[in-house]
Amino acid sequence: MSALPGIDAVRDAAARIAPHAVVTPVLRSAALDALAGAELHFKCEHLQRGGAFKFRGACNAVWSLTDAEAAHGVVTHSSGNHGNALALAAATRGIAAHVVVPEGAVQAKLDAIARAGGILHRCAPSQAAREAMCAEVQAHTGAALVHPYADARVMAGQGTIALELLRQVPALDALITPVGGGGLAAGVAIAAHALKPELALFGAEPAGADDAARSLAAGERVISVVPDTLCDGLRALVGEPNLDALRAQRVEVVTVSDAGTVAAMRLLWSELKQVVEVSSATVLAAILKQPRRFAGRRVGVVLTGGNVDLDALPW
Amino acid sequence: MSALPGIDAVRDAAARIAPHAVVTPVLRSAALDALAGAELHFKCEHLQRGGAFKFRGACNAVWSLTDAEAAHGVVTHSSGNHGNALALAAATRGIAAHVVVPEGAVQAKLDAIARAGGILHRCAPSQAAREAMCAEVQAHTGAALVHPYADARVMAGQGTIALELLRQVPALDALITPVGGGGLAAGVAIAAHALKPELALFGAEPAGADDAARSLAAGERVISVVPDTLCDGLRALVGEPNLDALRAQRVEVVTVSDAGTVAAMRLLWSELKQVVEVSSATVLAAILKQPRRFAGRRVGVVLTGGNVDLDALPW
Repeated sequence: MSALPGIDAVRDAAARIAPHAVVTPVLRSAALDALAGAELHFKCEHLQRGGAFKFRGACNAVWSLTDAEAAHGVVTHSSGNHGNALALAAATRGIAAHVVVPEGAVQAKLDAIARAGGILHRCAPSQAAREAMCAEVQAHTGAALVHPYADARVMAGQGTIALELLRQVPALDALITPVGGGGLAAGVAIAAHALKPELALFGAEPAGADDAARSLAAGERVISVVPDTLCDGLRALVGEPNLDALRAQRVEVVTVSDAGTVAAMRLLWSELKQVVEVSSATVLAAILKQPRRFAGRRVGVVLTGGNVDLDALPW
Repeated sequence: MSALPGIDAVRDAAARIAPHAVVTPVLRSAALDALAGAELHFKCEHLQRGGAFKFRGACNAVWSLTDAEAAHGVVTHSSGNHGNALALAAATRGIAAHVVVPEGAVQAKLDAIARAGGILHRCAPSQAAREAMCAEVQAHTGAALVHPYADARVMAGQGTIALELLRQVPALDALITPVGGGGLAAGVAIAAHALKPELALFGAEPAGADDAARSLAAGERVISVVPDTLCDGLRALVGEPNLDALRAQRVEVVTVSDAGTVAAMRLLWSELKQVVEVSSATVLAAILKQPRRFAGRRVGVVLTGGNVDLDALPW
């Protein structure tokens, strides 16, 4: 298995997940267009099964396994949405899903994983602790690892968003996604450029977890960043293959403050009328922070998730 | 002008508003379907221009005027969404909109009316005070009255929702809307039954403003109800022609408590990921209160508005 998927792998993923995933709608807002000075086409992955785009990658990975592999179940580590997605995807194939979750994850997301039938394994909130616990579960169960982002099957699944969006809005000039571990950003970049090489690609990254921006600037992966951001879905460090894809596809990463992101989240709620989580709002924050990059363009804007604790809103 | 529109008036309205109104999407939620034991198709009028279905009726009324009538502008009284809709509709024709608003209306809605270019006239929060102020503005300006619900042009505009929804989901068995003044409920009932006479029609009404339920039970219009409900969009007493339409179309009205409505609103936010206002949630509250009426059916559920004060959520 190659480290990065090609467009054929993305097309295969689209066929594989079609029986299970939602074709999410694209929404517009005249008020947000006016504010941005651009034509914003919001791809609503918070309306995806499980409330986040992660179902696409997880579902593609689960249905890529042979029957013999699948019999032992799957395992992953995730701050929430990928774990939930893997549990839901495993359920579509009737297999077990083990989910390693760091202490401090959003309770609503843990509840959703358990409701979806996932088996929770708690660990300390560090990358090393996550990986160690994952290895332990693998050793005990023989479950197949489905990494949240540094996995070609997962990237191919996330890339199906670009196929769908370019079918829904063929005339796009630009496309922006949040950047965390880079599974979404890489998959979408690979698929989008394969279909439309002239598309301008952007990523939005919290300033408090700006390892992708630093890594692209430095020309090598910067792993010294200690994430400090409200955006709980974007705290992972960008993966090695993911970074390669961002570089190869010339994705420009815009960093945004948490304050800018919370203001953008509020706009998405009040104007687009969509319940999106804080990580989802980085993309609008980036557009409003650097309006000249997007002015007058038709921009695809990927809203990634909507799993929010309604009792703990950030304003 | 007849007191009630026929299906031809609804079709004319659809053509008249098409250049200005949004064809709103229909959303689904597996979690809400499971909770209701029914197939719920949510018609998203909170994504209509101005954030509420009211734009349809207002726009149809504005574009039904002759040029000579339109030159004097339009006037209405409204607790918010209709006023905003009329201001937006008037702007599409370049004419003035005078909006009489009762003290105590939601500030976010008043701000929206002003932003849309509407001219605000404040009055006491009684039906009599609203009508007196309206008459005064009419006398001074010659503006055409566009009543929020007891107006055939307005009902015809709201009825276009049924045309659209039955095109999007032809196989519906039942349809439910909130009931306030009855412009939406009457327009939708007339249009829906004209296209599909076997459709079961329901209305959802706050128990604290249950004049429509009482009026249908009594066989005559009950105007003694003093509205006491969180649902600020549903405090108006049902209009005379509107009540006639509900009776003629055999609309069954289900009353719901504010507590049930707030719980349903929270479900619409957390599961459907939609920012809807409290009045919109009466429909889901009614389905969850009387599940046997809806069990196993394909139900069209009209979500009416999404203009919410995000700093004053009811939970």
